Amino acid sequence: MAEQNPLPVRRKKATRVQSVSHSPSEKEQPGGNEKPRWGESDFRCHRVQESLLSSASGFSNYRGILNWCVVMLVLSNARLFLENLIKYGILVDPIQVVSLFVQDPYSWPALCLVLVSNVFIVCALHLERRLVLGQFSEQVGQLLYMFLLFTILCLPVLVVFTVVSITPVGAVFALGVYTILFLKLYSYMEVNHWCRERRLAQTQALGRSQSVPLIPKANGEVSRKEVSYPGNLTHRDIYYFMLAPTLCYELNFPRSPRIRKRFLLRRLVEMLFIMQLLVGLIQQWMVPTIQNSMKPFRDMDYSRIIERLLKLAVPNHLIWLIFFYWFFHSSMNFVAEIMRFGDREFYRDWWNSETVTYFWQNWNIPVHRWCLRHFYKPMLRRGVSRWAAQAAVFLASAFFHEYLVSVPLKMFRLWAFMGMMSQIPLAWFVGRFLRGNYGNAAVWISLIIGQPIAVLMYVHDYYILNHGKLL
Amino acid sequence: MAEQNPLPVRRKKATRVQSVSHSPSEKEQPGGNEKPRWGESDFRCHRVQESLLSSASGFSNYRGILNWCVVMLVLSNARLFLENLIKYGILVDPIQVVSLFVQDPYSWPALCLVLVSNVFIVCALHLERRLVLGQFSEQVGQLLYMFLLFTILCLPVLVVFTVVSITPVGAVFALGVYTILFLKLYSYMEVNHWCRERRLAQTQALGRSQSVPLIPKANGEVSRKEVSYPGNLTHRDIYYFMLAPTLCYELNFPRSPRIRKRFLLRRLVEMLFIMQLLVGLIQQWMVPTIQNSMKPFRDMDYSRIIERLLKLAVPNHLIWLIFFYWFFHSSMNFVAEIMRFGDREFYRDWWNSETVTYFWQNWNIPVHRWCLRHFYKPMLRRGVSRWAAQAAVFLASAFFHEYLVSVPLKMFRLWAFMGMMSQIPLAWFVGRFLRGNYGNAAVWISLIIGQPIAVLMYVHDYYILNHGKLL
Repeated sequence: MAEQNPLPVRRKKATRVQSVSHSPSEKEQPGGNEKPRWGESDFRCHRVQESLLSSASGFSNYRGILNWCVVMLVLSNARLFLENLIKYGILVDPIQVVSLFVQDPYSWPALCLVLVSNVFIVCALHLERRLVLGQFSEQVGQLLYMFLLFTILCLPVLVVFTVVSITPVGAVFALGVYTILFLKLYSYMEVNHWCRERRLAQTQALGRSQSVPLIPKANGEVSRKEVSYPGNLTHRDIYYFMLAPTLCYELNFPRSPRIRKRFLLRRLVEMLFIMQLLVGLIQQWMVPTIQNSMKPFRDMDYSRIIERLLKLAVPNHLIWLIFFYWFFHSSMNFVAEIMRFGDREFYRDWWNSETVTYFWQNWNIPVHRWCLRHFYKPMLRRGVSRWAAQAAVFLASAFFHEYLVSVPLKMFRLWAFMGMMSQIPLAWFVGRFLRGNYGNAAVWISLIIGQPIAVLMYVHDYYILNHGKLL
Repeated sequence: MAEQNPLPVRRKKATRVQSVSHSPSEKEQPGGNEKPRWGESDFRCHRVQESLLSSASGFSNYRGILNWCVVMLVLSNARLFLENLIKYGILVDPIQVVSLFVQDPYSWPALCLVLVSNVFIVCALHLERRLVLGQFSEQVGQLLYMFLLFTILCLPVLVVFTVVSITPVGAVFALGVYTILFLKLYSYMEVNHWCRERRLAQTQALGRSQSVPLIPKANGEVSRKEVSYPGNLTHRDIYYFMLAPTLCYELNFPRSPRIRKRFLLRRLVEMLFIMQLLVGLIQQWMVPTIQNSMKPFRDMDYSRIIERLLKLAVPNHLIWLIFFYWFFHSSMNFVAEIMRFGDREFYRDWWNSETVTYFWQNWNIPVHRWCLRHFYKPMLRRGVSRWAAQAAVFLASAFFHEYLVSVPLKMFRLWAFMGMMSQIPLAWFVGRFLRGNYGNAAVWISLIIGQPIAVLMYVHDYYILNHGKLL
């Protein structure tokens, strides 16, 4: 219990000097046998000073408050977890997960759809081979590609609406695979088209200068390993691209030198563990909360709707965060490590984003890169303004969000579409009025609150449609 | 949607240099009428890099996570607030507060006790006056003081146990006033005793040197304003000390130059508003939570007890924090401003405390200062070891905590006493094993969890005693 403050010590000295003027030295003091029961500093124990929390004190060290936040968050969530466990018991059931994918054990429509997707891949490859041989003109090639890509988007929709035994989760899985296939084949088509354009340009340029041979062999060592245009049209190459964790085709992907066994193992353990965790959290936390939200929705009891929404926001947000890590870090790195795919930038630091645009540019890099390369930049080259191009990207993104949600649930409500489109005014508002930490907080709030609104909307409408009335 | 990363730009240049070697300049390219639909950078859109969350990336900017913590805390508590309002309706009732203080409108025992305390103040003053005149010896004076201080501690206990109409809240208030009176008069006694000792020492020293006059007038301007020993024994002086926001007596308190009207008004508004808030929070949040905790306690349902404890911890902690601000910042600064009392250090930065000892030294400076000056330092001077003196301070503190809780509730359970005494092993543990932020988090956890345990213990036993069985 020693005094920390340096000022009282200084005072102590001052007081002693004063007292010395009366009694020349302390050792001369009388009654020397027993020590005095007081020290000179005890006579002066107050001094003029402000309270720390007064603005006049100039104090600003509130580092402890951060620890307080963390402790409060952990404790509140520990309580929620315990309350949930007491209320519902253990709801986690791995067998139930299988039934989400398969309804009829002799019919696997989602898996069949995924297998059928190989047909499109092989079609695209053969189309390219004919284009390079000049059997089709570019215009015919593009028409055939448009037909192919259109079929890729429409086939699963048709299957979902005609095959009864497909489950919503299975349908989401199949539609997700087909969406990725669509984006990848579009990229494949465009890059190969660019290669032909560039080769044509080079040939014409060479035809005029007539000095350099057709196929450059100057930088021999590099080009020996690297694949140049027509050489990439192989089954091996297209299947590597289809399995690689990217949506942008490139003739020569950067490769990592070797497969790191320990890294691979860690990602595998993460993948398996987090998948269990996600399933458990959804079954134990999301489903009961959503089911409890149906009654307030039916009664249109607004204060209860908001309460339910906030209650749903926490597990929904945590599950989204865990899903982000599982998909973009564990799974993609796992696949990339197996394939020795070098570019592991699957996300950037979106958690620091101070604007909505920064968030959308950084949380899903494969899609962002695809949009930039095959949608945004080509539009800019055609003279479209930046704002219009950006809005178009959001529009396309909104379309695919809606596609992935509405078709499996077999109902068109446009909630996901509107959710994505509402990002444009939100981005404008945050960019215009909020800066720094306030902007960051606004992005977090829109993430935490926005998602459960959309989830509740769809679940509500799904129950109304499929069960006639609410639970 | 511009590229943020500088590296792709560098790549872009490299690729352009390569392509230039084939086609000498871009302007010479054929088909110059239409721009190409691709940029050279589009051919190379991947590069070897690690994911940010991989340890190999060396990335460590997680500033956004702090904002996330704050947003999550605000949203969770908004939900709790709403849930509470829906479940219980509005429970805030200012009339009920009056009934906590007064049971029988014609009998105000707590107020009478506070008025009676004036007798002790006047007694102490007259005792001092006789001592300075030499009508009593020091030994007799000390005996009389001991009797006076003993009476101060015992009288309210007797009243609480004999007068039926006193309420627990009224009793806590009266006991609090008497405890403060005890500490103040002890300080008053000791400082006056020191003054006599010092005067005696100076007289004897002067008797030997025979050169300096008895009353020093050297630093005239200062001593003209300042009061020296026997001159302080006035009613005005002792009542100023009794009302001043400090427990340590001093002959010349530092004074602020003037009463700042705006500061006073702000503190007054804070006091009134926060008092309402505290009463509201207790009625709306604490009382229902405590009542709901009784059943699990009766059934000894451990998982539910822990859940209730965590549920109680949040409002209890928030109320404690608000109470801290109300009492130590608003109220004490308000009183100090009215009295032009200069020393406003009523607390230090205990929120940053990394050890339990630092917390106890810094959250309640008036009590800490008293303990240091009248308990800890005198013990050290008598040769008691630091550890023993520190333990003795905690023991005294534990006694007064128990005194303020057990007497009003009329039951002796020692929970508060044990709570305070358990700080000694906790302080040892935290100081020994935890450093920096971990120590800080441990202090917060002990505050957040420790208090509701004691509260629940007392409430549980109080119900058992007064209502025969639990609700």
